Amino acid sequence: MTTVGEMGETALIEHITDRVRRASPLQTMGGRIITGIGDDAAVWRVGGVQAATTDTMVEGVHFRTSTVSWADVGWKAWASNVSDIAAMGGVPVAGLVTLGLPSSLDVSDIDALYDGFLEACSSYGTELMGGDIVGAPISFVTVAMTGVCSATPLTRGAARPGDVLAVSGPLGASRGGLILLEDGAPLDTPARQALALAHRRPTARTDASAVIRRLGVRCAMDLSDGLAADLPKLARASGVSLQVDTDQVPVADALRTEFRPEALRLALGGGEDYELLFAGPSDIVAAAVSEIPGSSVIGDVMEGNAGRVAYVAGRGERLSLNIEGWEHLR
Amino acid sequence: MTTVGEMGETALIEHITDRVRRASPLQTMGGRIITGIGDDAAVWRVGGVQAATTDTMVEGVHFRTSTVSWADVGWKAWASNVSDIAAMGGVPVAGLVTLGLPSSLDVSDIDALYDGFLEACSSYGTELMGGDIVGAPISFVTVAMTGVCSATPLTRGAARPGDVLAVSGPLGASRGGLILLEDGAPLDTPARQALALAHRRPTARTDASAVIRRLGVRCAMDLSDGLAADLPKLARASGVSLQVDTDQVPVADALRTEFRPEALRLALGGGEDYELLFAGPSDIVAAAVSEIPGSSVIGDVMEGNAGRVAYVAGRGERLSLNIEGWEHLR
Repeated sequence: MTTVGEMGETALIEHITDRVRRASPLQTMGGRIITGIGDDAAVWRVGGVQAATTDTMVEGVHFRTSTVSWADVGWKAWASNVSDIAAMGGVPVAGLVTLGLPSSLDVSDIDALYDGFLEACSSYGTELMGGDIVGAPISFVTVAMTGVCSATPLTRGAARPGDVLAVSGPLGASRGGLILLEDGAPLDTPARQALALAHRRPTARTDASAVIRRLGVRCAMDLSDGLAADLPKLARASGVSLQVDTDQVPVADALRTEFRPEALRLALGGGEDYELLFAGPSDIVAAAVSEIPGSSVIGDVMEGNAGRVAYVAGRGERLSLNIEGWEHLR
Repeated sequence: MTTVGEMGETALIEHITDRVRRASPLQTMGGRIITGIGDDAAVWRVGGVQAATTDTMVEGVHFRTSTVSWADVGWKAWASNVSDIAAMGGVPVAGLVTLGLPSSLDVSDIDALYDGFLEACSSYGTELMGGDIVGAPISFVTVAMTGVCSATPLTRGAARPGDVLAVSGPLGASRGGLILLEDGAPLDTPARQALALAHRRPTARTDASAVIRRLGVRCAMDLSDGLAADLPKLARASGVSLQVDTDQVPVADALRTEFRPEALRLALGGGEDYELLFAGPSDIVAAAVSEIPGSSVIGDVMEGNAGRVAYVAGRGERLSLNIEGWEHLR
């Protein structure tokens, strides 16, 4: 056992640099990286249009090592950035990692964290090209990622009245998994295992992003804070109101199995699903939904009342829902 | 007074987005930004070679609001990233800001922080193009920045035996300022004011970077952790040893005035100077030093003993120095 404090920053950075270089021996991104991890900044060759995003996880706020492993944290931090790039219609390329670390943390935990980063790097065809490590009283993990993008990215502000609204797959599994993990429930059924996995290893929908981009969708965002919290963001950015049919919101099967009466509420309110929410003309969205297994049309984009979201159940009665997604600062 | 927790994440992000858009009404970077702050990721148009870096400041570790203002924190977090891009020979373009915020923090403090970011944006011709805000038990500020760069960036690994070593300006003023501010010393002399300013508002040497790049220097890094801590990093990356003449190390005038007997030690050990350390053939470095006021040749690059740094005083006797720079995790 060696703590981060015992190893010291310089040795830890060298240790990590060696590992990352071994995992990606040429640091080339197909010849694109000129200077990778280990210098003041990463340098790479690009042409055209770039996307950049950043996302942070703080111990005790976004994760607890009692419920997720350090490798899970690395995977999630990387995948959530991939998801943001995909939500712009971009293809993720490379990221920087910033770590805030208490000096008492064991270096083996950092190794596990990088296992997660590097697994995700490999899964999404991306490269870890550098970062920063600082001492801190609590652990935090920030990834900043760049990708290539078209000059007409998928934005939150491109929904138009008359468009229909869709999600790329079932919701709520991550939240269900979090509840099970926090309760210390035995993961003794396939449904429970599926929920825990959805929480620990979410999938960024680069595949769905490619489909909707190809079909000409212009409006998308990823669902990181929960559908109920994210819908108003799209509505405000687009200057429209939204009507969502809760009967059409796809709920993860395992969530129905484990949390039957609560499943819809968890699907609407739960965060970290990283599915894509997108809107467009009904023919385009219908084509996308037919190509993306598990996706569904969930509602309509309407004129007026910018930012407002109304919920109806299938037969049309108006619902009053009191569901809040994830608000980071409350 | 409104705390961050009272305002909530969504409102705070909208508040910040409005401010940043007002400070940069077109979010265009000369037509390059396609989607700026407020979406899943920023999207901009580039061609050629990019540099990216990230740097973090943690409250209680890298700053205390008893000694620096929130505007100073914003300035420093931005300028330190500009400095990293300059140290690669790049020109900074745009950055993302990640904030970890306790819910008790006042929104006026966040406004002051963004004052600092936006002042630095303006000073360095850069744009704030997005970011992430999360709740955290302590405050931390991470900036990730990209810039354009040549295909032959200035790296730490390009020093060769026979090269000479130089710094772009006087060292130690930031450390001197930190000592005065932590002691609560009255800032009642020009020297003390200069030291405090150097600590609160360091300057990234984009000017010196442009000179050394134009003259053909290939090896550089910025001095963020202190000369004594940073020299071995350059020596290790280049596989060389270094010999530094402490009589030639430029010491900030105000530091000599205020800390006479300790001035050299503070100049060697103090961090956050953000001067450039560079190496190259003696004729090129001499030309650079003659163009950069305050810069000095400080030593030689030698073969063997990779990573070793020896200190001599002017007449040549070997010194045994016990000076440590900033190690973030100790």
